[in-house]
Amino acid sequence: MPQSQPQSHLPPSERVSVKRLAARGVYDPEQIHAILDAGFICHVAFTVKGEPRVLPTAYVRVGGEIYLHGSPSNQMLRSLIASPEACVCVTHVDGLVLARSAFHHSINYRSVVLFGPAREVGDPECKRAALQALTNRIIPGRWDEVRTPNPSELKGTLVVGIRIVEASAKVRNAPPKDDEEDYALPIWAGVVPLSVVARQPIRDPRLPSDIAQPAHVTAYLKEHEA
Amino acid sequence: MPQSQPQSHLPPSERVSVKRLAARGVYDPEQIHAILDAGFICHVAFTVKGEPRVLPTAYVRVGGEIYLHGSPSNQMLRSLIASPEACVCVTHVDGLVLARSAFHHSINYRSVVLFGPAREVGDPECKRAALQALTNRIIPGRWDEVRTPNPSELKGTLVVGIRIVEASAKVRNAPPKDDEEDYALPIWAGVVPLSVVARQPIRDPRLPSDIAQPAHVTAYLKEHEA
Repeated sequence: MPQSQPQSHLPPSERVSVKRLAARGVYDPEQIHAILDAGFICHVAFTVKGEPRVLPTAYVRVGGEIYLHGSPSNQMLRSLIASPEACVCVTHVDGLVLARSAFHHSINYRSVVLFGPAREVGDPECKRAALQALTNRIIPGRWDEVRTPNPSELKGTLVVGIRIVEASAKVRNAPPKDDEEDYALPIWAGVVPLSVVARQPIRDPRLPSDIAQPAHVTAYLKEHEA
Repeated sequence: MPQSQPQSHLPPSERVSVKRLAARGVYDPEQIHAILDAGFICHVAFTVKGEPRVLPTAYVRVGGEIYLHGSPSNQMLRSLIASPEACVCVTHVDGLVLARSAFHHSINYRSVVLFGPAREVGDPECKRAALQALTNRIIPGRWDEVRTPNPSELKGTLVVGIRIVEASAKVRNAPPKDDEEDYALPIWAGVVPLSVVARQPIRDPRLPSDIAQPAHVTAYLKEHEA
């Protein structure tokens, strides 16, 4: 699996050029990768008999690719492999933007849309590396402490790589922007920041009481504490 | 705008039947509506020249419809209106499911996929009602305290209604499920719950200091406190 530095994607084509509110468009690969690396659930567009569909799934970026996985008979993954190209979206909601006018209410967010060809990752060691990267992206350090996949599990997992050929990000991170005459209105305006936090873990009911919470879980909680 | 009780959707067709892990499938309209009403950002599938695309946008459910909005020239909204049917997905991530084996790691989540025809909402009062519902879904009580849209703003907003003709939800809300022989391994297992919280608001820098934080913002913070 490539562990390369953030690569240059192609320059923005008409397709990935941000059209609405073009000032929010970001095409820098490092910023795009940072947005991708801040999450682990994407939404994937695909077609079934020409009809557009969308489903959520987990992903991880490694170098210039993202990896998805699922059952070998997963309809979405099969459709991606059979198509010339995949379209994937990652969205983080960062805040409610409360303006003086209803019209200028908005959301602070970071989102990426990417396009590229999807391929089945066939080599078992490459599949294992993709699953390791995914597990450690969701919670760093987890892979080294669990039972890793046996050959039968690897065979029972379809791993799909999507090369990031074109991508764009759209970012809003700012106070409300009201019409000039509305600033005189006696209406409260501002941003309510939103973030995802982790709560105290719920131990598996079947976990023996002498197995303590491991350091990687404690570190995750500290990193995502409320 | 219809304010009807949750209606019966059609029984699950092949298209909305949950295929992977069918036990997670939910077809009850009340449960589907509850998942829709817990969020305000959806992902919309559409096609451009036959190619599948996906983008995030805000939504609100009212009765048996969801409403989206945007610029009158918004490519995604225009594509939805021109297509026989829309496909929309809403996803909430509720926790990391940490199993003893890498293979059984999972996510606790609630997601809905819905299908139905999209139409432009032309009547200004219906547009206003949809925008009011959207604003008050995101933060209850906001609409009554802001400057509501004038005729020019309403004209400059495209509102699209999508009738929920078919829908299914997929829900996982459970401890890890390991292979029976793995329960003997000395590996910590459990669920790390995740939730979205609101932080202290950032007042608009241009807000006069004598305008106090309104009750609806304080109530929202209490409802979503860390």
